[in-house]
Amino acid sequence: MEKDHEYFMTLALREAQKAYERDEVPIGAVIVSNNNGEVLAVNGNRTREKNNPCAHAEILVIEEACNRKGAQRIPECDLYVTVEPCPMCASAASFARINTVIFGAIDEKSGGAISGPRLYESPAIHHKPHVISGILASDCGTLMTEFFKGKR
Amino acid sequence: MEKDHEYFMTLALREAQKAYERDEVPIGAVIVSNNNGEVLAVNGNRTREKNNPCAHAEILVIEEACNRKGAQRIPECDLYVTVEPCPMCASAASFARINTVIFGAIDEKSGGAISGPRLYESPAIHHKPHVISGILASDCGTLMTEFFKGKR
Repeated sequence: MEKDHEYFMTLALREAQKAYERDEVPIGAVIVSNNNGEVLAVNGNRTREKNNPCAHAEILVIEEACNRKGAQRIPECDLYVTVEPCPMCASAASFARINTVIFGAIDEKSGGAISGPRLYESPAIHHKPHVISGILASDCGTLMTEFFKGKR
Repeated sequence: MEKDHEYFMTLALREAQKAYERDEVPIGAVIVSNNNGEVLAVNGNRTREKNNPCAHAEILVIEEACNRKGAQRIPECDLYVTVEPCPMCASAASFARINTVIFGAIDEKSGGAISGPRLYESPAIHHKPHVISGILASDCGTLMTEFFKGKR
């Protein structure tokens, strides 16, 4: 069976679940080469662990994949992430020249790719990745809802 | 003489100049504690050197200052940067709870704080740093113009 969006999103979800268990905002991300389906990086949020507000799942996997490729631009790669990227991460994916950003749940409150400031429609974002949303959205969103319910 | 915005911007400009000499986009940044004027981090762009599209000056100094403080939120700190932050960096400064973002030149083409997507007016950005612009703007902007002129 060919690996599909749900397969890679399941990998991202596993990272989100691990983030949840570390008491981090439960978002996970995966970078995949769209040449051969090779998984170049998987990670979840680690802002608390690293005392680093930039250590979102997406930033961590972009940095790792770029490091592995020895390049600051990885146009042959796709980014899977369980929740719509925030403006920081949406912009980082653009700088990395990510081909397609595939996410699960839309984040109307804090998302920045297609929600809120809609960066992927903004002239300030010079490379606009393709966007596919809604992959395993319910599972991805439920993890977030459960996490923040526990914080109230 | 009390240290003022121009003093700290001069430190940022020095980092921008060093970035220029490394053939990096010449932007420099400084994080200063607004309690006592302590300089917590200085750096310039290193995206080429690090093969990391996220290694903008602002991200590097936010990460270093947070690391020094052992915290992912540094609300007692101000960020000086020679050019208006892009959406990635404007968003990162918000996550870090930076008190005030002070920048030199406005970046109408790629800026994201008050230009383009105007993130600091967006409901998706939950902490909105104060903004002061135009400090040594001419020096900051000239360095960019010269750099990109050399690339054409």
